[in-house]
Amino acid sequence: MKMTRRISTLASLESAQSTSPKLNSHPPMEIISTISWMKETARQSRAENHVIGFIPTMGALHEGHLSLIRRAKAECSRVYASIFVNPIQFGPNEDLAKYPRTFEADVEKLIAAGVDVLFAPLAKEIYPPDFKTYVTIEGLSDRLEGNSRPGHFRGVATVVLKLFEIAQPHFAYFGRKDAQQVRILQQMVHDLNLNLEIIVHPIVREPDGLALSSRNAYLRPDERRAATVLNRSLVEASHQIEAGVRDALQVQSAIHKILSAEKLAHADYAEVVSADSFEPIARLGNSAAYILLAVFVGNTRLIDNLFIEPAPDSNSYVCSL
Amino acid sequence: MKMTRRISTLASLESAQSTSPKLNSHPPMEIISTISWMKETARQSRAENHVIGFIPTMGALHEGHLSLIRRAKAECSRVYASIFVNPIQFGPNEDLAKYPRTFEADVEKLIAAGVDVLFAPLAKEIYPPDFKTYVTIEGLSDRLEGNSRPGHFRGVATVVLKLFEIAQPHFAYFGRKDAQQVRILQQMVHDLNLNLEIIVHPIVREPDGLALSSRNAYLRPDERRAATVLNRSLVEASHQIEAGVRDALQVQSAIHKILSAEKLAHADYAEVVSADSFEPIARLGNSAAYILLAVFVGNTRLIDNLFIEPAPDSNSYVCSL
Repeated sequence: MKMTRRISTLASLESAQSTSPKLNSHPPMEIISTISWMKETARQSRAENHVIGFIPTMGALHEGHLSLIRRAKAECSRVYASIFVNPIQFGPNEDLAKYPRTFEADVEKLIAAGVDVLFAPLAKEIYPPDFKTYVTIEGLSDRLEGNSRPGHFRGVATVVLKLFEIAQPHFAYFGRKDAQQVRILQQMVHDLNLNLEIIVHPIVREPDGLALSSRNAYLRPDERRAATVLNRSLVEASHQIEAGVRDALQVQSAIHKILSAEKLAHADYAEVVSADSFEPIARLGNSAAYILLAVFVGNTRLIDNLFIEPAPDSNSYVCSL
Repeated sequence: MKMTRRISTLASLESAQSTSPKLNSHPPMEIISTISWMKETARQSRAENHVIGFIPTMGALHEGHLSLIRRAKAECSRVYASIFVNPIQFGPNEDLAKYPRTFEADVEKLIAAGVDVLFAPLAKEIYPPDFKTYVTIEGLSDRLEGNSRPGHFRGVATVVLKLFEIAQPHFAYFGRKDAQQVRILQQMVHDLNLNLEIIVHPIVREPDGLALSSRNAYLRPDERRAATVLNRSLVEASHQIEAGVRDALQVQSAIHKILSAEKLAHADYAEVVSADSFEPIARLGNSAAYILLAVFVGNTRLIDNLFIEPAPDSNSYVCSL
């Protein structure tokens, strides 16, 4: 296999870096495009007893990704990131072709964040023509995002397992915005006895509450204003829960009232589910729950969620947006 | 998780071993029943720079398994075996309940063969009640054994991936008798970028040609005599190929003639396939092929095969039984 670097502009980025006293305090980020060289790099890091933290991304990096990287930097001695827009997790009518690709800006952000290695393979490296193997997580993958996006979680689980085998991390960092994805990947790690731990990090939001997402770039200005409706409805849900509401239908009804007042938005789903099974629950009980939202704002599909944990002392709940 | 050993009789086996000068030349075999302890043991072996060879089995060990172990002993510095009768690779009408279980005899054979570690988990350790994750290899898994045994290869791939993650081998050894299984596992290792290599070892046969199989134990004496019909038909096929026959139908016809002359046997399938795609081929060509047999002898389903490789120099073939 070839071990050439993918991006010829990288040399210029690295030389820019080496002239910067601020950035020069850590060695230049290595960009790797081949599986064989990424594996060899990981093997070397492990042989040197490094603790490897890994942040898989699809690029179009924002502060949500960077918060994962900062956490990995604090907890690990080597931080790997990957940028790979995974074709098999997109449905035929989804936004694979127009998904934002901002590779050079991403590289600058990763260098500034102190990432040691960026794995950025081409699709043909990850999926050669004879590729045949898929990972499925039954039950959890069929509802909600999996129902709206058939095959999505099969694609996510398959590529993440491959990336884990290639980058061999001790810890892998994911944002809680993709709550169902995180739950499915935790199930995969548990069921397949993988030798790593998944770390879940809180949602990062814009000042007006919109959860950061690479897909926010699709929003026109009026849609961008309307997109706060996801956060606004979850804030209202958290207020209701703090006020003592336990009935899921009552919470959902309050959410739908706010969503339907926003003309540019229409809900795909708004559900109160068990944080373990992701099955709907009728009432908040003794275990953690999510309120999960998927909402079209114009043609852009956004997701967001509220994480609800029973408070240890009382019959109240801690709501995390 | 508990780290107790599964078999209380093991202490007596080990003390028997320690009084034997012949067996005392290597440390006693460790028997591990928990995933956590097996992982820790593998981690230690890797930290000591050992090369780990792994032989996953369903027990009922015979000379075929032992030939894999001898090869691993020659090629690796640590040899792990596993015994686990994997429920999810058996269909509802198959022989899971009556599959031969000879654990104590197996342990003696493994000790004598110099295996360092035996991993022998209970089914509930491998498949906890909330287990949901499966590996599928598309295309290759649907034909032949996969057609006769729906779900079989999904069960095989899933358990083998789990065992690989648990035992963390550098090399894993499989017999060529299960040719389609080996091909599927090689595809899985390739597609999922697993950090190990699959080693394929030739079929081991009884003096009369019957391929060794734990299921041979099911055969009554008259069935045992009839069971040589698989090997006899493959020997005839190899003679035809040596004599210049290239047409798959002609070879299959010769095989079916021999199979149908054996009253206790009836064929499930007898096919000439590409060794790469396992799709049927009409003629032997420039690439490797298999003749694959699945034959019921009485109620016992047996498989066997002939591996056919183009000779490097001429337009002849090397046939391996």
